[in-house]
Amino acid sequence: MIVVMKRDATAAEKERVYEEIRRAGLRYQAIEGVERTVIGVIGTQPDTARLYVEVLPGVEKVIPILKPYKLSSRELKKDTTVIRVNGIQIGGNGVVVAAGPCSVEDEESLLSVARSVRESGAALLRGGAFKPRTSPYSFQGHGEPALKYLARAREKTGLPIVTEVMDTKDIPLVAGYADILQVGARNMSNFSLLKALGDQPKPVLLKRGRASTVTEMLMSAEYILSGGNMNVILCERGIRTFENGTRNTLDISAVPALKEATHLPVFVDPSHGTGRREYVEAMSRAAIAAGADGLLVEVHHSPETALSDGEQSLRPEDFARLMQSVGRIAEAVGRTVLSLRGAVGVS
Amino acid sequence: MIVVMKRDATAAEKERVYEEIRRAGLRYQAIEGVERTVIGVIGTQPDTARLYVEVLPGVEKVIPILKPYKLSSRELKKDTTVIRVNGIQIGGNGVVVAAGPCSVEDEESLLSVARSVRESGAALLRGGAFKPRTSPYSFQGHGEPALKYLARAREKTGLPIVTEVMDTKDIPLVAGYADILQVGARNMSNFSLLKALGDQPKPVLLKRGRASTVTEMLMSAEYILSGGNMNVILCERGIRTFENGTRNTLDISAVPALKEATHLPVFVDPSHGTGRREYVEAMSRAAIAAGADGLLVEVHHSPETALSDGEQSLRPEDFARLMQSVGRIAEAVGRTVLSLRGAVGVS
Amino acid sequence: MIVVMKRDATAAEKERVYEEIRRAGLRYQAIEGVERTVIGVIGTQPDTARLYVEVLPGVEKVIPILKPYKLSSRELKKDTTVIRVNGIQIGGNGVVVAAGPCSVEDEESLLSVARSVRESGAALLRGGAFKPRTSPYSFQGHGEPALKYLARAREKTGLPIVTEVMDTKDIPLVAGYADILQVGARNMSNFSLLKALGDQPKPVLLKRGRASTVTEMLMSAEYILSGGNMNVILCERGIRTFENGTRNTLDISAVPALKEATHLPVFVDPSHGTGRREYVEAMSRAAIAAGADGLLVEVHHSPETALSDGEQSLRPEDFARLMQSVGRIAEAVGRTVLSLRGAVGVS
Amino acid sequence: MIVVMKRDATAAEKERVYEEIRRAGLRYQAIEGVERTVIGVIGTQPDTARLYVEVLPGVEKVIPILKPYKLSSRELKKDTTVIRVNGIQIGGNGVVVAAGPCSVEDEESLLSVARSVRESGAALLRGGAFKPRTSPYSFQGHGEPALKYLARAREKTGLPIVTEVMDTKDIPLVAGYADILQVGARNMSNFSLLKALGDQPKPVLLKRGRASTVTEMLMSAEYILSGGNMNVILCERGIRTFENGTRNTLDISAVPALKEATHLPVFVDPSHGTGRREYVEAMSRAAIAAGADGLLVEVHHSPETALSDGEQSLRPEDFARLMQSVGRIAEAVGRTVLSLRGAVGVS
Repeated sequence: MIVVMKRDATAAEKERVYEEIRRAGLRYQAIEGVERTVIGVIGTQPDTARLYVEVLPGVEKVIPILKPYKLSSRELKKDTTVIRVNGIQIGGNGVVVAAGPCSVEDEESLLSVARSVRESGAALLRGGAFKPRTSPYSFQGHGEPALKYLARAREKTGLPIVTEVMDTKDIPLVAGYADILQVGARNMSNFSLLKALGDQPKPVLLKRGRASTVTEMLMSAEYILSGGNMNVILCERGIRTFENGTRNTLDISAVPALKEATHLPVFVDPSHGTGRREYVEAMSRAAIAAGADGLLVEVHHSPETALSDGEQSLRPEDFARLMQSVGRIAEAVGRTVLSLRGAVGVS
Repeated sequence: MIVVMKRDATAAEKERVYEEIRRAGLRYQAIEGVERTVIGVIGTQPDTARLYVEVLPGVEKVIPILKPYKLSSRELKKDTTVIRVNGIQIGGNGVVVAAGPCSVEDEESLLSVARSVRESGAALLRGGAFKPRTSPYSFQGHGEPALKYLARAREKTGLPIVTEVMDTKDIPLVAGYADILQVGARNMSNFSLLKALGDQPKPVLLKRGRASTVTEMLMSAEYILSGGNMNVILCERGIRTFENGTRNTLDISAVPALKEATHLPVFVDPSHGTGRREYVEAMSRAAIAAGADGLLVEVHHSPETALSDGEQSLRPEDFARLMQSVGRIAEAVGRTVLSLRGAVGVS
Repeated sequence: MIVVMKRDATAAEKERVYEEIRRAGLRYQAIEGVERTVIGVIGTQPDTARLYVEVLPGVEKVIPILKPYKLSSRELKKDTTVIRVNGIQIGGNGVVVAAGPCSVEDEESLLSVARSVRESGAALLRGGAFKPRTSPYSFQGHGEPALKYLARAREKTGLPIVTEVMDTKDIPLVAGYADILQVGARNMSNFSLLKALGDQPKPVLLKRGRASTVTEMLMSAEYILSGGNMNVILCERGIRTFENGTRNTLDISAVPALKEATHLPVFVDPSHGTGRREYVEAMSRAAIAAGADGLLVEVHHSPETALSDGEQSLRPEDFARLMQSVGRIAEAVGRTVLSLRGAVGVS
Repeated sequence: MIVVMKRDATAAEKERVYEEIRRAGLRYQAIEGVERTVIGVIGTQPDTARLYVEVLPGVEKVIPILKPYKLSSRELKKDTTVIRVNGIQIGGNGVVVAAGPCSVEDEESLLSVARSVRESGAALLRGGAFKPRTSPYSFQGHGEPALKYLARAREKTGLPIVTEVMDTKDIPLVAGYADILQVGARNMSNFSLLKALGDQPKPVLLKRGRASTVTEMLMSAEYILSGGNMNVILCERGIRTFENGTRNTLDISAVPALKEATHLPVFVDPSHGTGRREYVEAMSRAAIAAGADGLLVEVHHSPETALSDGEQSLRPEDFARLMQSVGRIAEAVGRTVLSLRGAVGVS
């Protein structure tokens, strides 16, 4: 349920509400708006506290949330959440593009790609240090050394870093380097990992599972939010269907569905979504046209020799062209692409 | 295989090639280009004729077609096929939007919707006279009377008509009224119907089956093309997946996949693709951003009381807004929306 | 809705009920049970007739049917429908196996396979004369000559024939030879074909569409039943999923689901369901263990050279072994395999 | 690749081979057969060691493994692996049934269900202590107290315990109580968890992911095997499809597919596979008829009030009936159901 406080509710009145919620064995998340505070109350049976709370001073009204997802619901919070990462605003009017290699391979090529994508207009650097691979005999990522390369690339380009964390026990290590922690599609329902990510402050980019509905994705986000971390970015990356001409079926309709259901920012990954370099630009345009707040695009300096996912990685020059056409689509929907191009103090 | 004729090949030389193909028990389709003629040779084993054909006068070279689809392949024909319907060019630079009710209900409301969608920029009128319904107890369409209403709406608005044909035996009746014959998703693999449509001259709009791959859709088109009718429009309308928040999963990646594979024009139906009015505009923008040549959109004067598919039908004013935002996307990809607005002699 | 007549209702009283139903613009199907007659009333709004019918003499009660399928529902008819074809009872305690080649290729090999499968315990002969093929350039079946071969094989072996009909206009031709008309998976939602099959008396074997739910399959059966033909056999043959190790995913759970929902007999096709010869025997056992009334199995004298579907066809000796293990499973569930082995007057 | 040792190869000769493998930076798993030892060599490029190994004394031949899964492949090991748990043989001729509640709720009802299922013929007790739930607001399992109830139920009934582990960090805790560690469908691609389970000795029951192919399931098993734990039981539990009449689509064809591909034992979970109590018995029969080595069945003393998955849980008396019909199917395929009924020293 949602507790809507009066405009002039005092800090003491809010504290009184929190106390009552805790006394009922429930938890809460306060959203401080410009005009007033609303409080999301969560737990197995949140309505038990209703009677006690709605008569408290400073409370305007108490509203049940009808959806199974609560803290991620637009019922709780009308405005899209804006997540700030090193000065970049994710979820605002600007379209944010994260680009970089599937796996971080070595420092030099990473830096070269990072500089290139920044010049083309990317605002975030993506790259995998821990890689979930179908086969135990495939390259599993360089681990901590790759995280160090990412940190140095950030230092030199100013691009904040998005990288995947696969295990609860690795969170402190990865969070020590990354600006945004990514949860891969295979771990969207790894609830232990999600709970642990709710218990730390770094923003989380949560990818949709290959067999998960949009609603289930919001329920997974809810695991993070209900732990106290409200900075979650959702990422559509394709679902598994019978169609085998593409690696997955990129569900672009998830974009308007999510934008209607939740206040969290929505990204699209056209690289995993299609698995085919040839379709990445068209699907990037489609994603932004449908209302996505950002993209996650794989770019590699030499896709033919990539250690993973080469067939879906763009060459830097292809990415430059993609950014131009995405820029025109962003304008057509009244937005602009956020860019660090020409940022001061970086090279 | 494809026979590429020399630039200066004479009619007699071409005739000689056709003769040799027929002698081998094969069939052909000649594509007369600006510079030269290429001839698609089809049959169970087209390569048997190769030896005889490639030595004939006027023949430049003979190339095998590697894809299972032949006449629909871009290997055969580089330029997108432009289909002309009452002055409208489908597959050219202009984006063509077909709009109208799911089922034709009565003459007055059809005409009202037709006028409205034309003013908003639609170039074709869609409407069902024969309706494939899951239940035999549901409204099955008004049949021939509905075709007559469509014809009168065309007379008054100038909008060419797209309507579905469900059975081989109905083709003469429906083709007597319609400008474009639609094959619904449920009949994409009704090969008897496809063969019969290959044997008549009206253009065909072929919708993708709910469980059909992009390649299988091209193979179905091939049934029509190999019968001699080269005027086929392909239409992505969603595939069936586990996601139940939308009626189908609209596979926007089918657009770049089809544009790469075939010279046939590609449409998208965001109404059936999502089944949710709220998502139709976003998905229309996505479709055009991804490169679609046109849209098929359900518009009803009163969706709440529609005899079928009301929940996915737009109100005329929603459609007007959709056309404006689609127009901006079309511009962003270097195209314009073809419109009959203000056409002379219609009302 | 269902009209349950009293035990002693007279013919005149029933006639009075039919009249009232017709007067309301509705249709009906009477099921004459051992003890009493029940009448299924169908139409767009069958309940409109309720008030008039339930007060008529001879009427015990009127019950609404809650499911969207009416005449196929177990609500209407508790006992499984038994369909009699040349002395074979389909839907009774005996398990009925139809076997034979995917496509009928020539008379001699068909007869050889027919004799072999009869000796192994098959009670029906299956074989395709009209073949729905993805490619127009693939073998499309021998048509009427193949029907003649089937008829001669029936003459010599006593095995009734199951063969596919693909188009409304071919029904008289195919029904002239076949004992059971098959509707293929691709045509499960070809409602024109289904309506036409409801209007003729031969039993119909209706295969599940690759993207169709169990409920939709029952709705398709309803098209045939509501036309007046109550002799429909349902056949699970696999649905389309992401799994690509098998041609389709054979949904064995459709068997108990259908047995619960409908009184119509239920078959399973493990050949198309798996597309892999190696799995056909195991899945045949599973089907019968789950409660299926019969099987449809592809058997070819030389699968390696088959004109279609060789990789899923069994050799005659594999089929013999399958029938033995299926026989043991049938016994374990209290049934027996119906066989024409040693039938008199055939060779 | 596989190194096949000569029959009379000495321990020293084998040690020499292991040394060479390690020197090449590879790992190995030796399978000691009755007649000879075969050694599976694994790593990113196992063939690099071939030249050095095949000339060593005691080596008969070196064979590449063509499948992407190596240690789980029947190419490596012809005989089905038999896993011994407290005297129960899993993967042998006996069919093993694990039964019990979805979630462990309290000690008394657990013990009551445990006694009941043992009397009906179950040989393992299943029950969840840590529950992966879509919603963070749903019951998440009782954790360690539930593990203690399980251990006491084992003490009193003699039934070994199967229970789920969801996180790397919980393995020591859960392994301290459980006899078999279950990996749920949502964690089939949680590779960190799989690696950690490869590094401990308790057998693992690995469930198929909802969007995972049979081959991917074997690749996940490979993560455990390549860590050194060869005791893995695979469990088919349904995949996600468009069909919504059942919770999942239970892919029975995975049983023959797995039995062909791997030497690991194969179980089926008809409870999650269908999500519908009414279909569990039929699907249990189908699973055993198709060749499964065991079942995982949810049984609850009062399904109507269960804290999770009540609609798919059987009542004890339904389970007793299921075991009788499964027993008859087991006999029909030449097997028997392994039972602890009447075991000495338990009550």
